[in-house]
Amino acid sequence: MSTFRDDGAAALDWVASYLERVREYPVLSRAEPGEIRASLPVSPPDGPEPFAHVLRDLDEVLMAGITHWQSPRYFAYFATTAAEPGILAELLIAGLNQVGILWRASPALQELEEVTLDWLRQLLGLPEGLHGHIEDTASSGLITALVAARAAGAGRRVVVCSEHTHSSTTKAARLLELEVRTVPGDGAFAMRSDLVDLSDACAVVATVGTTSSAAVDPVSAIADLAEAAGAWLHVDAAYAGSAAVCPELRGPFAGWERADSIGVNPHKWLFTPMDCAAFWTRRPDDLRRAFSLVPEYLRVSEDVVSLSEFASPLGRRFRALKLWAVLRCYGREGLQAVIREHVRLAGEFERWVRDEPGWELCAPRSFSLVCFRRVGSDEENEALMNRVNDTGEIFLSHTKLDGRFVLRLAIGNARTTEDDVRLAWDVLRREATASGR
Amino acid sequence: MSTFRDDGAAALDWVASYLERVREYPVLSRAEPGEIRASLPVSPPDGPEPFAHVLRDLDEVLMAGITHWQSPRYFAYFATTAAEPGILAELLIAGLNQVGILWRASPALQELEEVTLDWLRQLLGLPEGLHGHIEDTASSGLITALVAARAAGAGRRVVVCSEHTHSSTTKAARLLELEVRTVPGDGAFAMRSDLVDLSDACAVVATVGTTSSAAVDPVSAIADLAEAAGAWLHVDAAYAGSAAVCPELRGPFAGWERADSIGVNPHKWLFTPMDCAAFWTRRPDDLRRAFSLVPEYLRVSEDVVSLSEFASPLGRRFRALKLWAVLRCYGREGLQAVIREHVRLAGEFERWVRDEPGWELCAPRSFSLVCFRRVGSDEENEALMNRVNDTGEIFLSHTKLDGRFVLRLAIGNARTTEDDVRLAWDVLRREATASGR
Repeated sequence: MSTFRDDGAAALDWVASYLERVREYPVLSRAEPGEIRASLPVSPPDGPEPFAHVLRDLDEVLMAGITHWQSPRYFAYFATTAAEPGILAELLIAGLNQVGILWRASPALQELEEVTLDWLRQLLGLPEGLHGHIEDTASSGLITALVAARAAGAGRRVVVCSEHTHSSTTKAARLLELEVRTVPGDGAFAMRSDLVDLSDACAVVATVGTTSSAAVDPVSAIADLAEAAGAWLHVDAAYAGSAAVCPELRGPFAGWERADSIGVNPHKWLFTPMDCAAFWTRRPDDLRRAFSLVPEYLRVSEDVVSLSEFASPLGRRFRALKLWAVLRCYGREGLQAVIREHVRLAGEFERWVRDEPGWELCAPRSFSLVCFRRVGSDEENEALMNRVNDTGEIFLSHTKLDGRFVLRLAIGNARTTEDDVRLAWDVLRREATASGR
Repeated sequence: MSTFRDDGAAALDWVASYLERVREYPVLSRAEPGEIRASLPVSPPDGPEPFAHVLRDLDEVLMAGITHWQSPRYFAYFATTAAEPGILAELLIAGLNQVGILWRASPALQELEEVTLDWLRQLLGLPEGLHGHIEDTASSGLITALVAARAAGAGRRVVVCSEHTHSSTTKAARLLELEVRTVPGDGAFAMRSDLVDLSDACAVVATVGTTSSAAVDPVSAIADLAEAAGAWLHVDAAYAGSAAVCPELRGPFAGWERADSIGVNPHKWLFTPMDCAAFWTRRPDDLRRAFSLVPEYLRVSEDVVSLSEFASPLGRRFRALKLWAVLRCYGREGLQAVIREHVRLAGEFERWVRDEPGWELCAPRSFSLVCFRRVGSDEENEALMNRVNDTGEIFLSHTKLDGRFVLRLAIGNARTTEDDVRLAWDVLRREATASGR
């Protein structure tokens, strides 16, 4: 164990130093395809190597291929954070190495998962009585929801969503051989509920905070339609759901309490290390009917339903421990403070864009995502984005809205300050001007 | 960061002390259903708490609900290990918090995953040219395989497996609405290949090392049949696959090199923390056709296929880093030494059972699993198992073979010594005698 203590101290120092210096790295990796692979031996070693070699090669080989999701200057896709309590919880999780195949294999894993998901439910203002479990990703959660919807759907095989719904719905539907029917978005990229027909649908997916523009589908109206048609309503709030920890930000969520299932990813905007996707349902029996299968070698005398009976994987990690650590070390008020600040900073950035000639906003701002572009062609905007990302100072990504190339600035890293957002704006303006020369 | 360094030192000390004392805990948790839940606050805290509270409550509340998968006296299901390099790698993984949604989001994640899976392929003696990626669990790997098989299967929807195949095949088939056709096992619980009919099958699942008894299906014969019928052959070697690091243990794997896909779980018997399930295919194009879906906001200029195009989840953890750390810090010879010792210890235990009146072996021993029972009724054996597990000294589980209740002793924890196995045998004999009184 002395080796473990020494190696552990070195690993811990590595992580602490990394987080101290994380602003210094080019945010988007500059590696060329194949470059990291080419720097690694083609075969494993025959004899044992010290752990120090792992740390050495992490520095000398792998770091060139790291895109710094932990950087406060990461504004691409959706910005995330592995906060310190979550990082240390991962150390504990690995040390305990719980494998939650059934309740008795780790009562603590199962019951902490149930309690922590209920804590999070309360934090988000969701009603009592929801059954919660943790999935790896929202993609898996979509599969879980649609499997239950299909089973409960009396032969109906249509899934309705908006053209702006995340691709994981289409991917899940393809897996399950369901037909996806896409409803157009309105001017704000929200689902046109007046065009929704659920008469032959087993499920409808409403999104609060789409990936492209953080648009908000009219959940209440969709819930009315789902109820009338007997279709399963899944609310995908993978990114934006975390905002509901702030009561004043709950407006866009109105109606989600009526959903049959809801997905919110604490690994996105709730400072929990990858991966941790919360899933709630008010119809746990439908999930269990679709998924439960207990072979002889897992049969036990206790009268407990294991969490593995509500989803695909049999084994589960002790993910609840990291979410629990984050919720405790931030507390309700700590979570609210960071989320509020991110929304405020996004509002600031939005104002800067609006007030600056030569730039335009491209979607109503929801939460902490700003969609904008330089007045000009798609090619100019794409070139601008690439130039900005090449500086290494910040990293942002794009989407297409109304057929146009649009830049996305997503604020969501817990270490991001107003200076970082100001820097992003400075870099964008500087590179936009440089292109004019 | 000083808090992080201090908290981290405390967390590291916690894990090191835990591993030093892991033999002292009752292996199977003695918690009653609901006991852990009842000891936790029903609501999250309003204000932030120090990380020390997390460690305190881990000791005071959660530890009572931990079943000690890390104990060298854990012999249930399949014994696993989170080895020290893997534990520390999890700390690094969380510190870096890579989210592998596409190549550029973490070139190091993707390329290390490719390289590490190729290292493992070489270690197991599998042929060149296989495409590898990491899934969370073998259950997910089964879904991946069967999705590709279904898509390539020209409308055929039957999956053939043995009655001893892991329940994840049935679960995956149900998810995908495929029909499972079960083939009886022979006297050694291996699939009766003479009874296999693949004429209308899209897939056949052959297992090397079944969950019940570590039985070995005749992979070569099944591969012949699959080839002739154009059915997808998936080889499930989730547990036993790791044994192939030892050339002298590769006999039972003959033919797996012809599989369309193969699953081996390093989180089972290759000392890697939960979760890490390796998946190889020689038909990556079939996987990609079934799973690839690249929306606009993930479109990039690089000509690289992202690993997320080969399976369901979009986001992926940097799991490769822990497998890489384990493979390097053990090296080929280190892995072989532990696997060999486990197989030798299982052989010893088998001999003890065979030589002792009043006990019987219930299946041919393969790898490191011994199936045995006390001569007597099912009820007596179940009571014996419960009594043994209640002592807390060891933990083993059961299955049913030929309709009889059978005890399973699975050796697979890297810290298990001959003394631990000897203790298991002593406890079993002691409790068996106690029951006679």
